[in-house]
Amino acid sequence: LETTLRSAERTVVIGPGRPFVIVGERINPSGRPDLAEELRRGEYATVCGEAIAQVQAGARVLDLNVGASRVDEVRVLPEVVAAVQEVVDVPLCIDSAMSAALEAALDACEGKPLVNSVTAEEEGLERILPLVRDRGAAVVGLAHGGEGITSDPHDRLEAARRIVERAAQLGIGAEDVVIDPLVMSVGVDSQAGAVALETMRLVRHELGTNIVSGISNVSHGLPDRDELGAAFLAMAMHAGLTCGIANPLAPQLLRMVRAAEVVLGVDRFAKAWIRLYREANPGSGGGD
Amino acid sequence: LETTLRSAERTVVIGPGRPFVIVGERINPSGRPDLAEELRRGEYATVCGEAIAQVQAGARVLDLNVGASRVDEVRVLPEVVAAVQEVVDVPLCIDSAMSAALEAALDACEGKPLVNSVTAEEEGLERILPLVRDRGAAVVGLAHGGEGITSDPHDRLEAARRIVERAAQLGIGAEDVVIDPLVMSVGVDSQAGAVALETMRLVRHELGTNIVSGISNVSHGLPDRDELGAAFLAMAMHAGLTCGIANPLAPQLLRMVRAAEVVLGVDRFAKAWIRLYREANPGSGGGD
Repeated sequence: LETTLRSAERTVVIGPGRPFVIVGERINPSGRPDLAEELRRGEYATVCGEAIAQVQAGARVLDLNVGASRVDEVRVLPEVVAAVQEVVDVPLCIDSAMSAALEAALDACEGKPLVNSVTAEEEGLERILPLVRDRGAAVVGLAHGGEGITSDPHDRLEAARRIVERAAQLGIGAEDVVIDPLVMSVGVDSQAGAVALETMRLVRHELGTNIVSGISNVSHGLPDRDELGAAFLAMAMHAGLTCGIANPLAPQLLRMVRAAEVVLGVDRFAKAWIRLYREANPGSGGGD
Repeated sequence: LETTLRSAERTVVIGPGRPFVIVGERINPSGRPDLAEELRRGEYATVCGEAIAQVQAGARVLDLNVGASRVDEVRVLPEVVAAVQEVVDVPLCIDSAMSAALEAALDACEGKPLVNSVTAEEEGLERILPLVRDRGAAVVGLAHGGEGITSDPHDRLEAARRIVERAAQLGIGAEDVVIDPLVMSVGVDSQAGAVALETMRLVRHELGTNIVSGISNVSHGLPDRDELGAAFLAMAMHAGLTCGIANPLAPQLLRMVRAAEVVLGVDRFAKAWIRLYREANPGSGGGD
């Protein structure tokens, strides 16, 4: 299945066998009190700077999250959408737990965005899926129900299946549902990475939908996080991940995406890899 | 299944859920004319230097290959075994296409080595498996028959199965057969990496044996090979690779092994990862 997202003029297609799509994660105030303070004041200079930097670095979609204490998401999220759309032309991933904020942001949004996210809980599905359908958006489905997060990949698969089925009933095709397998930190639960990877493999096989995941979650609380993220990213791309919410300014992650595309045969005959090498090493032959 | 290798005094156990075993690949004259020339003259200073450097860097087994034009393997391979055993105490992987050289090297070898390799071809199996059994060694089984290398992972699985079955008939348990799925360069065939990974997954599931692979093959002829090797290594460890023939002096590969062990939950609660971080950053807390 292929998920098509659009900005005003640009189309991004997410799908197996296609180049991996990086969703830039940096417009998010968690752990960044200065950014939270700007959002409270309705100032978007940092937001716009992050938008430009991430797109220049290779992000093809931008995640927009303004969740922080004393930030009025219903007012701020659509303003951030408008501000970002003025400086970059890439599809957006509207990231909020508040359906009123999602609704307001969708009204401000050009093209076809990704809504982040619903779970398999009926209440949320009924509240958010109609917004997604009416707006012609795509949606991220978190692979858990309301009963707490399970560490059984088969239970997660069933939660994902429920989301896909409820979406279909409401007129949203499986191509517009992107499943997030949920990644917890291996610093807390050593099996968290293996569980997420097996969930990806099952979803890829059984549902065939696209799969998105935050890359940094797996290393939360541990040192040298980009290296752990790169290892997880390579395994996840092999397991079926087609799209990652990540920091495109981390060169290790970006290089790993390109290397994994070579190994998996998506970058056919390593053409893109060799081109990058030649750009970085002018005058070289490109191989050994 | 667990494969136990031994040197004079050290035991190395290869198995799923255990720390990944790096087999140092650097004692090999291919592409190194100076080393080939030393081997022709029966001089082993470089060999001994490489042995020490690789073990210090983290290799837990050493591959010994002396195949080059005008090198008399039957004389040289056992001499290299003896020379290496004088300077390091790790199990050896005796790597030759000549059964007479394997036999001579096995006679010189202490402990329980790994013999590299047999294919599913009957003639080779009958020639080499009895040597492996009589010497109490373990053996690498290359997942192809005599009919040329197939790119169908299921055919490779069947070749691996034939090797395991013939070994069993000759009294060698499956725990002492380590399957090599065969890795070709993605620069030649874009699907080569995916085929090797799927072969690993099938072998892991269907046969349960340990799996070994050369890490560098996948990137042959391409630039920035260590990065491609690191991507392949992460995916392969997830697919079931328990042991890799690699250059332990490449820091990217070694770091990737450690990172992948964290992600896969082998390095429980990232204890080894955090210890490495603290050694490299004295006085630090170890997380963020």
